[in-house]
Amino acid sequence: MKTSEIAELVDGELCGDGDIEITSAASLEKAATGQIAFFEKVAEMPSTNASCVIVPQAALPLTTETPGHREAETRPVGSVPEMRNGPEMRNGERGMRNGVRGTANDQAIICVKNPKLAFARAVNKLYASDQLFDGSHPTAVIAKSADVKNAQIGAFVTIGDDSYVGEGCHIHEGVRIGKNVAIRKFTVIHPNCVIYDGTEIGGNCVIHAGTIIGADGFGYVKDEEGNYEKFPQIGSVVIEDNVEIGANSCIDRGALGPTRIGEGTKIDNLVQVGHNVDIGKRCVIAAQTGISGSVVIEDDCVIGGQVGFGDHVRVQSGAVIGSQAGILPGKIVRPGIWWGTPIQPLDEYKRQNARVKGLERLRKDVTELKRAAEEKSEDCG
Amino acid sequence: MKTSEIAELVDGELCGDGDIEITSAASLEKAATGQIAFFEKVAEMPSTNASCVIVPQAALPLTTETPGHREAETRPVGSVPEMRNGPEMRNGERGMRNGVRGTANDQAIICVKNPKLAFARAVNKLYASDQLFDGSHPTAVIAKSADVKNAQIGAFVTIGDDSYVGEGCHIHEGVRIGKNVAIRKFTVIHPNCVIYDGTEIGGNCVIHAGTIIGADGFGYVKDEEGNYEKFPQIGSVVIEDNVEIGANSCIDRGALGPTRIGEGTKIDNLVQVGHNVDIGKRCVIAAQTGISGSVVIEDDCVIGGQVGFGDHVRVQSGAVIGSQAGILPGKIVRPGIWWGTPIQPLDEYKRQNARVKGLERLRKDVTELKRAAEEKSEDCG
Amino acid sequence: MKTSEIAELVDGELCGDGDIEITSAASLEKAATGQIAFFEKVAEMPSTNASCVIVPQAALPLTTETPGHREAETRPVGSVPEMRNGPEMRNGERGMRNGVRGTANDQAIICVKNPKLAFARAVNKLYASDQLFDGSHPTAVIAKSADVKNAQIGAFVTIGDDSYVGEGCHIHEGVRIGKNVAIRKFTVIHPNCVIYDGTEIGGNCVIHAGTIIGADGFGYVKDEEGNYEKFPQIGSVVIEDNVEIGANSCIDRGALGPTRIGEGTKIDNLVQVGHNVDIGKRCVIAAQTGISGSVVIEDDCVIGGQVGFGDHVRVQSGAVIGSQAGILPGKIVRPGIWWGTPIQPLDEYKRQNARVKGLERLRKDVTELKRAAEEKSEDCG
Repeated sequence: MKTSEIAELVDGELCGDGDIEITSAASLEKAATGQIAFFEKVAEMPSTNASCVIVPQAALPLTTETPGHREAETRPVGSVPEMRNGPEMRNGERGMRNGVRGTANDQAIICVKNPKLAFARAVNKLYASDQLFDGSHPTAVIAKSADVKNAQIGAFVTIGDDSYVGEGCHIHEGVRIGKNVAIRKFTVIHPNCVIYDGTEIGGNCVIHAGTIIGADGFGYVKDEEGNYEKFPQIGSVVIEDNVEIGANSCIDRGALGPTRIGEGTKIDNLVQVGHNVDIGKRCVIAAQTGISGSVVIEDDCVIGGQVGFGDHVRVQSGAVIGSQAGILPGKIVRPGIWWGTPIQPLDEYKRQNARVKGLERLRKDVTELKRAAEEKSEDCG
Repeated sequence: MKTSEIAELVDGELCGDGDIEITSAASLEKAATGQIAFFEKVAEMPSTNASCVIVPQAALPLTTETPGHREAETRPVGSVPEMRNGPEMRNGERGMRNGVRGTANDQAIICVKNPKLAFARAVNKLYASDQLFDGSHPTAVIAKSADVKNAQIGAFVTIGDDSYVGEGCHIHEGVRIGKNVAIRKFTVIHPNCVIYDGTEIGGNCVIHAGTIIGADGFGYVKDEEGNYEKFPQIGSVVIEDNVEIGANSCIDRGALGPTRIGEGTKIDNLVQVGHNVDIGKRCVIAAQTGISGSVVIEDDCVIGGQVGFGDHVRVQSGAVIGSQAGILPGKIVRPGIWWGTPIQPLDEYKRQNARVKGLERLRKDVTELKRAAEEKSEDCG
Repeated sequence: MKTSEIAELVDGELCGDGDIEITSAASLEKAATGQIAFFEKVAEMPSTNASCVIVPQAALPLTTETPGHREAETRPVGSVPEMRNGPEMRNGERGMRNGVRGTANDQAIICVKNPKLAFARAVNKLYASDQLFDGSHPTAVIAKSADVKNAQIGAFVTIGDDSYVGEGCHIHEGVRIGKNVAIRKFTVIHPNCVIYDGTEIGGNCVIHAGTIIGADGFGYVKDEEGNYEKFPQIGSVVIEDNVEIGANSCIDRGALGPTRIGEGTKIDNLVQVGHNVDIGKRCVIAAQTGISGSVVIEDDCVIGGQVGFGDHVRVQSGAVIGSQAGILPGKIVRPGIWWGTPIQPLDEYKRQNARVKGLERLRKDVTELKRAAEEKSEDCG
């Protein structure tokens, strides 16, 4: 992509040559010719060999009093980003590459409101795979009653009876799709995932390798002799559009009703989602978190890693729960930031930690008071 | 199944038409015609469209003074469950469906000691798959020396030398079975599981997708230069009858002896069982719990999710350990309910939590005592 | 292997017959004829039926006053290990097998500095599989542009374009290897692992079943409407030589740069390694630990199970972190032993636990002081 195309894509203001060809992306420190980078903290921009850098609009206007040749120096936010090699950047006249005065024409900057977002969009476009919808690999075993649209089906994939795979999907090698599964447009399922019977997956979803969707929930009934008999796990899993799920995670089917993951929610690796859990839209759930049965997480919640939810917890929209927190069954978690086991508001958690740390001092004070009291009572004697 | 067949199966007393055809199951709230449901809290039974409801025997005898047309009303336990549309239920004369007076004949109730257990049994029977033992999928790669009985072997399964798969087993797509593995009758192994060489799995077991049984335990010896060399992990895994293991769990092989999972034990998703662990019969272990090497868990223990066991812990029969608890290496956990890290009896854990919460008050008291003492000593001065 | 060969392999001193054939290994208690065992605590050596036992050099010199026929008795370190059946062990004249007096010739001991290490080496040699480099299973799908050396490729393996598999590798059934992957000599990848595009794996590595290497890291940017867009995850994973990774673990690719696992590091099952994490050489990381993005773990660290790392933590070389510990983002962990959440030095952690346990006593003391102060002020009144 050319720098001008990128500027247009991200709705940014281009300073410099619009014809520079960008072929890949890197961090600002490591970027080389032909690469795009971004940075957010204007005051601290280091020199770079990137051919294009996306910066905050606050970085403009470029001023002419900018000194060159200072490296990694701290400067006030809002001033021009530091460029090695001089002051004539505006209009493509100033270069960013160290010691290459006069090569200004092979570097450009793009100014936008949100550089990280713009960088993400540009790079995602740049790296978008030209998916060749060359149909199914000859080794794939697809049931006759399955309805597979113009999608890419990898080697050794199996697709069961009455399942549907939408247009533009990419089902990677070794994925197992059961019966009556529906997967909508442009969803990517990475290798060796297992999608049990009856699961519904929306469009534009990404499921990373090894993830299991629709295994039985964990529910048993004790019989007369104390043995566990399985409680029926005959519900389903419904995953809405634009959901991404990491590798080796597990989303269990509901016992009787569905387990649901709302639109735009992002789930990390090795996460456990129990039966009948209902997760809203635009939630983020970090790695190794475990969500027990029938938990409800409303829209726009952020959940850290290794958090544990007891069953029937309800997390209200907008709540943020810190890593390793533990939530007792049935609790309602209101909006705000929560931490610890059992969870408490972050401020209270910090105060409590400080109080526990203050225990040594407290003990000393009490011992001293006791001693003083004893001396006094001896005096009286 | 007909309602009369279900009543017979669960050894229950049928009230209503025995010829109603039941084809599926749902929760009481969502059930529709042709579905079976259950409830346990007689006092709060809502109206339902289910064609059959399993209820506690306490709900009987049905009385004639029961008013109809009240919905979701709280009533004393032992009284008749509320049925929409009237009082003549006994002998199939009363309906449960809202506003459909006179259709009593298409609803029935079945009274049993334990409705949840009866429901589980009825529904498990209802949904029992008519496994077609149609042999092996032509793509399966089965060693010539393997002994596969009349079982169903899915596409792309591999079975190594000298392994045995018993009658009625269902080995799903992409499962890897190593050499010298024995799997007894009617066991189901879901897709993409990996069973390492030498593993023994009992009858009537269910192993969910992506679970790994028999990988090497985590044991190393430091050599002279500080490098880790592998300690031999040449033991085995023995899983007894009626065990169920969730998705993406790991059961490591023993270092020298076996790792054992006792009969009827149920293990959830993403659980780690280390080498030489010995788990007894009828234990329940929830998701993401990690069990270090050589831990012994005796019969009938209940372990919550995300619990961590140090090595060589022994959990005595009947102990219950709460979620996220941590148990130090070598500890003996006696029967009772345990919680926290390091674990303590639940009551002590609660008291301790209360004391920590009381720290703020305690600090204030001490500060006041100090101030009083200082004033007094000034008075004396 | 003959006992003399084993003695030579482990550089040990052989006492007894060098021609005894050893075919397998077991623990000292369970070993039978033809098996090798080891023990480390000389003082407590039980009798054994092992044909060969590796013992510490401290066990020598063998003395003649050693009584036979005592079982599992405690004896001072440095004395001869107890052998059943008599005192004439030296020079192969004494037997170890219970009640088989006179069969001294079919047992031997080997004395070494580090018996566990020597045992590991001997047994690893004994059990080394005679890998038949019989090439690729006919069902494997290997891209034409892939370069697969003299390696063993299992059934249903897929290998993508431009990937390299070195000499002596064993790629088990159902493994997915993407494009541009490099796997060096003698590395073993167990069934159903997934290696994403661009991953580099060193020589002599072992990756256990179901592990996912190179899935996208967990990084998103919020857009103007509050939806999450994916931040590019276009970095790579670099795994150096002699690394072992357990089953169902996840090593994410870097966002822009690489995620690295240093030489000789050992990682257990179900471990999460986030994007851009950099792990040094000879680290040990136990099961279910989660490492957030951009964490640096320097050489020779030991990390327990279920530990949680916030992002950008740096663990300095030689640090030891106890199980279930939690480390806040950005923290620098110095060498030493650390425990708890948030982590603290082990000694401080223990003291703090003791102080919390002392809270009940502290509360009583304060209550008493208050009562005394009140009485006094009443006296004054």
